[in-house]
This record gives sequence, structure tokens and C-alpha cells, in this order.
Amino acid sequence: MKITKLRTLKNQSQTENLLEELSLPSKLPENPKRELDRRKFMQTSLLALASSPAMVMADESIKNDFPAWSTTPGKGLNEYGQPSKFEAATKRGVAKAYGDLAPGTGSARTPIEKLEGIITPNGLHFDRSHNGTPDIDPTKHQLSIHGLVDKPLNFSVENLLRYPMISRTYFVECAGNSAANIIAPQPIQATAGTLHGLISCSDWTGIPLSVLLREAGVNPAGKWILAEGADAAGMSRSFPIEKAMDNAMIALYQNGEKIRPEQGYPMRLLLPGWEGNMNVKWLRSLKITAEPTHTKDETSKYTDPLSNGKARQFTFELGVKSIITKPSGLMKLPSKGFYEISGIAWSGAGKVARIEISTNGGKDWFDAVIDGPNQAFCLVRFRAPWNWNGEPAFLQSRAIDERGNIQPTRAAYKANNAVDGRYHNNTIVTWAVQADGSVQNAYL
Amino acid sequence: MKITKLRTLKNQSQTENLLEELSLPSKLPENPKRELDRRKFMQTSLLALASSPAMVMADESIKNDFPAWSTTPGKGLNEYGQPSKFEAATKRGVAKAYGDLAPGTGSARTPIEKLEGIITPNGLHFDRSHNGTPDIDPTKHQLSIHGLVDKPLNFSVENLLRYPMISRTYFVECAGNSAANIIAPQPIQATAGTLHGLISCSDWTGIPLSVLLREAGVNPAGKWILAEGADAAGMSRSFPIEKAMDNAMIALYQNGEKIRPEQGYPMRLLLPGWEGNMNVKWLRSLKITAEPTHTKDETSKYTDPLSNGKARQFTFELGVKSIITKPSGLMKLPSKGFYEISGIAWSGAGKVARIEISTNGGKDWFDAVIDGPNQAFCLVRFRAPWNWNGEPAFLQSRAIDERGNIQPTRAAYKANNAVDGRYHNNTIVTWAVQADGSVQNAYL
Repeated sequence: MKITKLRTLKNQSQTENLLEELSLPSKLPENPKRELDRRKFMQTSLLALASSPAMVMADESIKNDFPAWSTTPGKGLNEYGQPSKFEAATKRGVAKAYGDLAPGTGSARTPIEKLEGIITPNGLHFDRSHNGTPDIDPTKHQLSIHGLVDKPLNFSVENLLRYPMISRTYFVECAGNSAANIIAPQPIQATAGTLHGLISCSDWTGIPLSVLLREAGVNPAGKWILAEGADAAGMSRSFPIEKAMDNAMIALYQNGEKIRPEQGYPMRLLLPGWEGNMNVKWLRSLKITAEPTHTKDETSKYTDPLSNGKARQFTFELGVKSIITKPSGLMKLPSKGFYEISGIAWSGAGKVARIEISTNGGKDWFDAVIDGPNQAFCLVRFRAPWNWNGEPAFLQSRAIDERGNIQPTRAAYKANNAVDGRYHNNTIVTWAVQADGSVQNAYL
Repeated sequence: MKITKLRTLKNQSQTENLLEELSLPSKLPENPKRELDRRKFMQTSLLALASSPAMVMADESIKNDFPAWSTTPGKGLNEYGQPSKFEAATKRGVAKAYGDLAPGTGSARTPIEKLEGIITPNGLHFDRSHNGTPDIDPTKHQLSIHGLVDKPLNFSVENLLRYPMISRTYFVECAGNSAANIIAPQPIQATAGTLHGLISCSDWTGIPLSVLLREAGVNPAGKWILAEGADAAGMSRSFPIEKAMDNAMIALYQNGEKIRPEQGYPMRLLLPGWEGNMNVKWLRSLKITAEPTHTKDETSKYTDPLSNGKARQFTFELGVKSIITKPSGLMKLPSKGFYEISGIAWSGAGKVARIEISTNGGKDWFDAVIDGPNQAFCLVRFRAPWNWNGEPAFLQSRAIDERGNIQPTRAAYKANNAVDGRYHNNTIVTWAVQADGSVQNAYL
């Protein structure tokens, strides 16, 4: 193996010679290419690093002094770990909706701009609650399946834990995520998490709902299911039985451990790719019905008033969407030079096929790399190298899913929806990088 | 869609008729088959459920009383969530190695028998420390690359965060995991976590080490790297430069958030598939050398004395291994009937190819299903249906990796290793199910 330094190369020709030594393609790309694959991505990033004169990321002096933590014993072992105290700023952004009028109503948003990879740590999964988080004793909780069935059934948590399980990594997104970017006439200056943080992703384990429905025996007239939570709000939503038989899950575990209280302990419904509050938390009842029930939670919210005077109800499947998390709102780039553009993308239709990046507000697009496994109804992490020349730039990402759906522009959403429309906003997000390096939320 | 109840089917012939209605293969398997795929697995599980007369998992009466948590507002929103108080027993098992002699020396083991899926939640990742967990201020921490390089370099955490990143789901296993099952003359009766819990798996994000080494410029004489931690123990290990250039990572994130203190905050080395303590935590220095350094941490431990009087040093790559976590030690099966056998498997050589299950102590084997994506150097979750007839049974799992490596028996390990050998134990684990349903650790 031959290893050579790249850092002191003086010009493009020297760099290309080195690439030949390393048995890598030796022609430096003039512009990022659509075909950028993972290997090429790392090369391109490396080249950006090597060829950027302003980019000095390492200090060449070696220090030999030892800090206190290297000379005295550290903390003892513990039974359940917590983040470093130096990471206290990595927390959910709490927004109460109606204050004392409806205690516990509001949201706690995932700080997506501080996270990496695709897994949301359990403590930071977003929480949208309508009457607070119930403190459920699992030995006293039951799930009932009733209505149009041959045999109504009650399941204790203990009994459910004996069923065959499946594990799947799925995102959950609130239908109201990113609403501020639609309803605010001028772009609100806030972090990516504050604006778009009602999205999280976990390795869920549970029971396919189809297994339990087959046990209860659904009548031919049973076409819909009313799912109801055990919280004081009695949050309830209707969903078609086809989804139940396709890929719905009763989730009991989240990222390995039992599901967290804010995500539905001891169990929640998961409808992969469908709008957040249909994934009913603290699930207590599944009633099989002939028609949708039209509960308060599905008539008072989540319906999209359109510009033609009609309204679209039951927009269950979430649109294809992406957010650049680095760089993003309220960040400041310290100097021109190399940056990695990184973010998350997802689709309610299945897999993400491609993510395109623009650094000039949509005039030109190039492909980002999807880093890691690409799973259906799951976040993907995308990455793209970027050499910032110090001039104002408009960073955008645009995801396309396996069914060919593509993210629309904000202008298209505004044209199709009524002035008070706000749900299901999957429009392209723009981060404006100013000449001083500050990053702002922008409408383009 | 036709949905019918399975639960009241009286015999095998009725069950087979129903399977035809559901357009599934209608012949009931006499014995689990090698070719069991995911779809067949769910069917087989469902059949075991339906055909087991002793299996009544659901209560058929519907209760309509509402508990307190359904009638009063729940807890308010919070910034960083914690598990339910009802899950307090899901914690790491702390074992101090030398008490007051070396504060912080010991291990905290992952309770693998209480977990599902493949992700270990950050609070439950195993911790093996040699002088406690240092409380490192990331603004005062540096990583130095020095020794046989063209240009020694220091990296602050802030500067490293500007490098291009990769995200990979990797397991980490201590070389001393499962040692008790080798050195104890009689099997110790304990949980799977206590016996085998020095294994965890996370979605790690960081920088390929090769990128940083190319920047420093490794001299042709540089063949090894000494990695050293900033803890008071100065934990240090040598590893060959080939591994650094292949897939080594400087990890800064763990399951989305910054790496936890017990796992190396603000950064650790990751050598995918290699023994745990080489993945040096609190990484402060990488010194490029011509030869291995033979530090105290690589000479006093982790060497395998063999039965032929010689010793095997530098067994870096971990063997292929699997553990059934459900059912497992100290559990008790409440009655005969259907159970899902579930567990984790992994290999230091890359991907797991297959996991075989035996319920009669190795006389017969059938394939388990790998549930979810199968990634290199990553845990897989395996599952297999089992109908317990109420008689004593010996449950075993045996993993085979993509290079054809297969788990050995305990007898084979004892024959090849000296009497005091204990490291790198990847032998087949046996759980003995007694007639009363209790599950014991057993040697076969």
C-alpha cells in the first residue's frame, strides 16, 4: 500500500498525478456530476479539501500537556447513560400550542440540524401530543380489537410480547411539519429543527397488525379501522383496512428498548409513510367499521383547503421530501472553502430514488450521494461536497422517490392550496448563505 | 381482500383450506425447512399460533372502564425524554473489576435479553472502562496524528466536524465477552446480558481515517498505528495501517446524537469487526510506527494461550457468533405452545450468511430468518417459530458468515485453548428449557 500526502500539493496537475499513484481516476471533475457514486464522492471531497487554499483545518504543532481528565480517574460505571453535559444544547424544541387551555397540547421538535445518520435517539424523537403524555402501567393496559369481527379480542402487553415480531426502520412525520414556511408571509429565521423538526426515524419492533386481525376474523363488511389512544385526549383516527393488511405494525419497541412514553408506551400503531397522528400512540382500541368514523382529530385538522374552493380530505400518504441540515438556518460558515452539504430525505410512497442539490437557487442541479442502506418508509442521509467561494449562495435539495414523485416549489404549493392551507408541506427548502457566512431561511 | 379468523380452526385440514383462501401455499410444513424465507416465516408463525390448542393469548371480553391516565391530562412536553418508570429494570449490569484498586475499572453490560431489533439505545450501550469515564470538554480536546508522517497534525473537534462524513451501523464486542461460559467449570445461571452483554450496535457517523492519514502523509516505513485514549488509563492499542486505510472511522456521532461519554465522547476509533478495546475511546493520539508498540493493554490481556503450549497474539478479527435472547437464561415459559425464538448474530469477517437453530441440542438444525437489512460488521436480528411441547428442550443457534466461518462448540474451544484461555469465545450457546418452563444456561 502506498500512502502519500495530499495536503501540500501545489496544483491540479500534481493532484492528478497523485490520483494515478493511488489507482483512482486521475481526471479532476470540473463540476459535480450526476453519476457521483460513493467512492467518487469521497475522492471529490478529498480533492476539494486538498485544492482549497483557504482550508486549513489542522494545527501542525503537537501539544504534550495532559488535561485533568487524563491524569485522574473518571466517573464510575452506571446503569443507564446520558449525553455529555457539554451537549446540553442538543434538545427538543418545545412549543406549547394553547398554554393552560389544553395542558400538554403542543410539540417538541427534533433538533435535526444537530443530528447525523438516520436514527433519531429516543430522547430526541419528536413529540406531538394533544393532552400530555399518559403514565401508563403496562400491566393494566389492554388493546381491544372489536367492531365488525367474528370474535372481539383483548390483548394484554404480556400476551402481545409472545407474538412473532418484525423489526423495521421507519420515519414518522407530522402532517403539520414545515407549516411555518407556508403560512408565514416572510421566512421565519430559525433552525432547521424549529422549522422542520416534526420528523424522526427509529428501528421499530412489533407485531404485524394483519396477524391480530386474522385472529379476530374481520367481517366482509369491515373496510375501515378506528384507532384510539388511551391518552386523555382520546386521539383517534380512521384508516382503511387495506393499509392494516399491507404493512401496519403494533410497535412495542423503539431503537431496541421498549417504546418511550412520548411515543406511545406501551404500544403505538405504525402506518409506514402515512401522516404522523394516524400512528396512534398509547393504542387502546382498534374498532373495525364499514366507513371512516370522522372523528374530531380527522375533521378539525389535516384537511387541505384548495385554491379551487374544494378541500382534500384524508391525505394519508406523505409526500417525498428533503431537508439540508448542514449548513442550515442560524448557522454561520466561518470562512470560504470546503463544506459537506448533508441532510435527510424520505417519502411516504416507499424508497427515495435520488436527491438533487443546487447551490444557486435551482438554476443547476447535481446529485447527492445516499449514504448507507436505502430502506422504504425510512430516512436516508444524503451528502454532497461543496466548495464555498465566499459569495452569496442559495442551497436547495430536491428529492425524487421510486414512484417518480418530486418535491414541488413553495410557489406551486401556494398556487394549488387556499391561502390558509398549511398541512402536507413537502416543498423545496432554501437556505440562503450570506457573504458573511450566515445562513438564513429564504423563499425562492 | 378476504380476511378470516384463524383462531377457531379445529384441525390441520381446516387450516390448509384457509391458507388456500388467503392465496398462500396450503401444505403445512411437517418440520421447519432450511429455505424458510420471511413470508414463509410469518405464515409458519401464524400456523403455530392457530394450531396450538394451549395457546390462548387474547381475552375475549371487552372492558369499558377507563383508567386514570385516560381521564386526566398527562405530563407536559420535555426537552430530552427518558424511558417509562415501569421499564426501570431495563438497565446495564454493572460489574466492577477491582473495586477501589482501580476506580472505574469494570464493565456495564447491555441487557440484550430485554432488547429487540439491532440498534442498542445509547443509554444501554455496553461500557468497558479501565479507569472510569473522563468528562472531556470538547473545546479543549485534540486528536494528534504524528510519528512516521510527512506533517504531524492536530485536529480540534470543531475542525473535524467540517470533514466529509460517513454513517455506518457497526457492532462493537469486547474480546472478553462470554468468557464466563469458558472459565466456569459449571454453567453460571444468569441472564443473556450478564453472560454475553459485552456486545452493542449503533448507527455511527464519523470521518474515514484514511482521509486524515492522507492529509498527514504517511511515510513508506509507517506500517502500524498506536491509538491512545485521553482517559487516565491511557488505554492504547496498535493496529496495522491496512485496517486504517480499509474501513477505520473516527466516530463523532452515535445513533444520531454526539457520541456518549461512556463510548468515547467526543470521539472514538472504530475498527469494524475487530475486538472491542481496539476501538479506542476518548481518542487523543494516533502515532504512526514501523512495528506494533506492545502496550500494556495488548500484552497483559487479549492474548489466547493455546493447548499446544503456544499463544496466539493479535487476534483482531472477532469470530462469527450468535446468541438466542428470547427465550434465554432466567426466563420462564408460562405454558407450552407457540414461542418466537429470537436473537442477534454478527461476524468480524463481514456479513452473516445464515443462522441455524436447534431445539434438541444440535441433533437437528433449521434456518432462522434474518429480519431487516443484512449489513457487514453489523448485528442481524434472527427469528424462528417454535411450538414448545412442554418437554425439556435444548435451544441453540449457530451462525455462519459470508466467508464460511461457523461457530464452534464449547468442547472444540476447550480442546484448542489452554485451561486458562477465555478470550474470543464465539462458541455455540445452549439454553436448556426445563419441563417447568424455566430456562437455564447449559454446556453441551
